[in-house]
Amino acid sequence: MDEPSLIFPAAEFRTRCAALQQGMAQAGLGALLLTTPADIFYVTGFLTRFWESPARPWFVVVPRAGAPIAVIPAIGADLMRRTWVRDIRTWDAPDPVDDGRSLLIETLNDITNSAPVGLPMGLETQLRMPLAEYHHLQSRFSLVDATRVVQQVREVKSPAEVDRIRASCAIADRAFARVPQIAGAGRPLDQVFRDFQSLLLQEGADWVSYLAGGAEPDGYGDVISPAPRTPLQAGDVLMLDTGAVRDGYFCDFDRNFAIGRASDTAKRVHAALWAATQVALDRLRPGMTAQQAHGMMVETLNKYGVTPLGGRMGHGLGLTLTEWPSLSAKDSTPLRAGMVLTLEPGVEVRPGCIMVHEENLLLTDDGAQLLCSRTPPDLPEIL
Amino acid sequence: MDEPSLIFPAAEFRTRCAALQQGMAQAGLGALLLTTPADIFYVTGFLTRFWESPARPWFVVVPRAGAPIAVIPAIGADLMRRTWVRDIRTWDAPDPVDDGRSLLIETLNDITNSAPVGLPMGLETQLRMPLAEYHHLQSRFSLVDATRVVQQVREVKSPAEVDRIRASCAIADRAFARVPQIAGAGRPLDQVFRDFQSLLLQEGADWVSYLAGGAEPDGYGDVISPAPRTPLQAGDVLMLDTGAVRDGYFCDFDRNFAIGRASDTAKRVHAALWAATQVALDRLRPGMTAQQAHGMMVETLNKYGVTPLGGRMGHGLGLTLTEWPSLSAKDSTPLRAGMVLTLEPGVEVRPGCIMVHEENLLLTDDGAQLLCSRTPPDLPEIL
Repeated sequence: MDEPSLIFPAAEFRTRCAALQQGMAQAGLGALLLTTPADIFYVTGFLTRFWESPARPWFVVVPRAGAPIAVIPAIGADLMRRTWVRDIRTWDAPDPVDDGRSLLIETLNDITNSAPVGLPMGLETQLRMPLAEYHHLQSRFSLVDATRVVQQVREVKSPAEVDRIRASCAIADRAFARVPQIAGAGRPLDQVFRDFQSLLLQEGADWVSYLAGGAEPDGYGDVISPAPRTPLQAGDVLMLDTGAVRDGYFCDFDRNFAIGRASDTAKRVHAALWAATQVALDRLRPGMTAQQAHGMMVETLNKYGVTPLGGRMGHGLGLTLTEWPSLSAKDSTPLRAGMVLTLEPGVEVRPGCIMVHEENLLLTDDGAQLLCSRTPPDLPEIL
Repeated sequence: MDEPSLIFPAAEFRTRCAALQQGMAQAGLGALLLTTPADIFYVTGFLTRFWESPARPWFVVVPRAGAPIAVIPAIGADLMRRTWVRDIRTWDAPDPVDDGRSLLIETLNDITNSAPVGLPMGLETQLRMPLAEYHHLQSRFSLVDATRVVQQVREVKSPAEVDRIRASCAIADRAFARVPQIAGAGRPLDQVFRDFQSLLLQEGADWVSYLAGGAEPDGYGDVISPAPRTPLQAGDVLMLDTGAVRDGYFCDFDRNFAIGRASDTAKRVHAALWAATQVALDRLRPGMTAQQAHGMMVETLNKYGVTPLGGRMGHGLGLTLTEWPSLSAKDSTPLRAGMVLTLEPGVEVRPGCIMVHEENLLLTDDGAQLLCSRTPPDLPEIL
């Protein structure tokens, strides 16, 4: 097959669209309107860091049957032509008078036949276009929620997708193995963050969309902060958590390191976190719910006599750093074979100090298959 | 002043909020609701790469007077407490039943006194929360467009902001000066992209949010593509365009390099692009419009006998890779002293092949002040 296509063969995208179109038919949709980087990449293979510019909206319309239609700024036409999408309609954006409005309306008019237009509107979704334009669309079309139409397809990864996520995980594995080269007592944390991003690039990441972490005695204050300029000290637990990207797919896991000898507290908490992920790795099966996965990790932490953090303890993963479902007490989503998930139990070491451990896995009919190397049971020490 | 505050002293944020509140008063708003990383960083100093996770909405409410109120997922509380914001209301997100809804409604009820709530809805804006939640807000409050309220404040940079953008530009300048170390005939372009990101990190970038470019004979197909694995060849023009970030502020400029000796075509086009930016650097003054800036660059390119690209030829810059206004034929925004702008003229070298050149500047009462080093008039050659 010599169809032009980026990242995957065109057949992969055709299968994805057919699955979406089955859901669209069940929901009675005349079209599916996609506006976010992940949704658009999923159906087209259009991959660019240009999403970083908020100036222009981009639209991909999935019709009832056949390939998607791209309604996009002219600046993206060259790249979109290298995907499998053949119907590409462009305008010169940003245009203060008509920033794609009439082109999008015309496209939807062409194909919806007065049936509703679906957009993701639910939990964990966003609309990437100006609200004023959305209001205008509302006055022309019946716009309905299509969150489940999209999520039930995207949440099960194809073998080709799993290969990409595994490749991203392997890149982060190799970079984590080199952390002792860049971290140690006296090294400022912001410099460690910079060096770790370079390691990820050296090991094959196309770019590093996410890096967070922390380092304080026995743990850290939170898991989302950028790095302070503070030097690492003996007794700190350094945590690095990364979402490195290769071919558009993310990994998302962290590793903890003791700077100098690990304290008994740090060892004990790390062992409890390790045990919590081990229980989930052993027991997870399709048909369980997200909240059951959460429950077994909380139970294990309690058994080890440590205090579980509130909030979720893992989530979906793939085209974005985090995807649904949430392994939390409130999420009753059934886990399905083909889901790629993170396990991310956290412990409150003491008030204001936490430790978090994370692994990435593929759920198969036979249970969990690790996508990254298993972290060692004993907290690694950087001496 | 020992108020806790990230990135800038609290006084900087107080001034920003006062300016927004003046616009809010003129527009009769009871509150301003902000949901995007840039808007929230602007009023609070809350800086994190965790925005990469689309799982959770984050809200900052600017009241008629006084400091903003943060209505955010609990996972961000620790970091938000290190900003100047003291009123921080959190929930355990993502929550499939009530993902911040009741907390946000309660907060708006507390302060709006039935006056409308403003949100950015216009060109170049986005809403970062699920649409279903927005619909619910619509049923409780009068939601109105506050694009200009936000943009007229954010578009003029404070001296402290200009310092940060200048620092980001200097990082990219130093990395561009080292491109001959990483690029040359035979080097695969994707490897050049990885190495260039490492150079930016080595030179002090906190992270690299944007890198695009291309390399083909005399130019490239577009300016937004990720890198192919193709090796560079003599005769190529290599372009790298980066948005490196330091302390939350972006640079955004590119540089072109001939691989081997530059062709006459490449030299001629580069000279025309250089002349176009020079004219704008010499003549730009506050009070001119964005379209006048565009016009003078197009005119110069025409004078040099090359074909100007359609679309805009520059834009605002600061908290995001691109900001309004657009230096385009249709944008009549008046340019103001304190705006940070890019000049980005482009030329169609031949069908399917373009060349683009970009500089970053601060507009002052006396004219343009470069924030990056001026690119040399002759296309640099990597021999």
